[in-house]
Amino acid sequence: MTEAYTLHEDPRSGNCYKIKLTAALLGLPLATKQYDILQGETRTPDFLANVNANGRIPVLEIESDQPTRFLPESNAACWYLASAANGENALIPQDSFAQADMLRWMFFEQYNHEPNIATLRFWLHFVGEANLSDQQRAQMMAKRIAGCDALKIMDDHLSRRNWMVGKGATLADIALFAYTHVAEEGGFGLGDYPAIEAWLGRIRALPGFIPMA
Amino acid sequence: MTEAYTLHEDPRSGNCYKIKLTAALLGLPLATKQYDILQGETRTPDFLANVNANGRIPVLEIESDQPTRFLPESNAACWYLASAANGENALIPQDSFAQADMLRWMFFEQYNHEPNIATLRFWLHFVGEANLSDQQRAQMMAKRIAGCDALKIMDDHLSRRNWMVGKGATLADIALFAYTHVAEEGGFGLGDYPAIEAWLGRIRALPGFIPMA
Repeated sequence: MTEAYTLHEDPRSGNCYKIKLTAALLGLPLATKQYDILQGETRTPDFLANVNANGRIPVLEIESDQPTRFLPESNAACWYLASAANGENALIPQDSFAQADMLRWMFFEQYNHEPNIATLRFWLHFVGEANLSDQQRAQMMAKRIAGCDALKIMDDHLSRRNWMVGKGATLADIALFAYTHVAEEGGFGLGDYPAIEAWLGRIRALPGFIPMA
Repeated sequence: MTEAYTLHEDPRSGNCYKIKLTAALLGLPLATKQYDILQGETRTPDFLANVNANGRIPVLEIESDQPTRFLPESNAACWYLASAANGENALIPQDSFAQADMLRWMFFEQYNHEPNIATLRFWLHFVGEANLSDQQRAQMMAKRIAGCDALKIMDDHLSRRNWMVGKGATLADIALFAYTHVAEEGGFGLGDYPAIEAWLGRIRALPGFIPMA
């Protein structure tokens, strides 16, 4: 039996979009099941017990001849799909250093980029500035600075190369594309980062590319 | 030529310790070069230009017959060493799902665990509570709650198995061990997490284990 994939997702989430974009670029069918994170739909007892004890989407559900498996963490799910596809366009380089360097940028994405750029986008674009708590408001400036730092590091890196790692698109590009291309919804102007803007265009031109919902 | 490894590190950092523990468990020689992060030694123009533009340690320096390469991000460096060692004890499972599930816990570590548990340890144990800024102080409660949540997820998971993934130690255990075993320095009592305490003992008993400096 070939595997069948279902993504548990909120379509507004860039972390979920990464997985959909990976599947699209690989030509893999991917069903989806939607949740509204603003309504707490990923914190229900059923979700915590059966999908992800961490109460977060995305989660990739994998059906095969084994018992159904659930894989949380967006970048791990992208890894699984690309390693399962395992072909010429697998989006994971074969060279050991390039593979580790790709993971390096995916960890950078989760540590330096997402908590700043995705969080400010979520607060400003979906929650609304007027609805933020004092504690959230107190963190905005630190997240603004750290997000700009992350974009600057990417822009410097991309000013000398076309892709984050090696000579073609990898999961590092997909992971970083997800929240970078909507960074303006978090108040990050991309006009200051010309190498990023050119790279966004290269990703949009990849065969099989799909836009975020 | 075999490869030679040098770790750019601050010995107080659990992220650096992960890489030293990985090398020790694999039996790989690893030289070290020390920096004092409290003195800003990883933010000098030389470090930013030649070691890591992100101004952070750890960075794994790799010498071989190619030009010297630098690999930032602790979990990526652990991946590189284990994939280079590539033997029976390579700490990376061969099965595709187990490999992705290992990466899932390593992303969890960088997103849910490290920014809370390691940051509170750094603030309380090294910077000192009296020296914290108002902005840092305002984040302490949120980090305390999120850190306890991460420990609870680990403890529930480990109450049903001996290792984070599969039937033996992997990089997921090493990554999570680093800051969990010193969580009390950040004010997180481990007495509430008996499955974690038993797992810490299993890791300390691994052949080749070395303690944090």
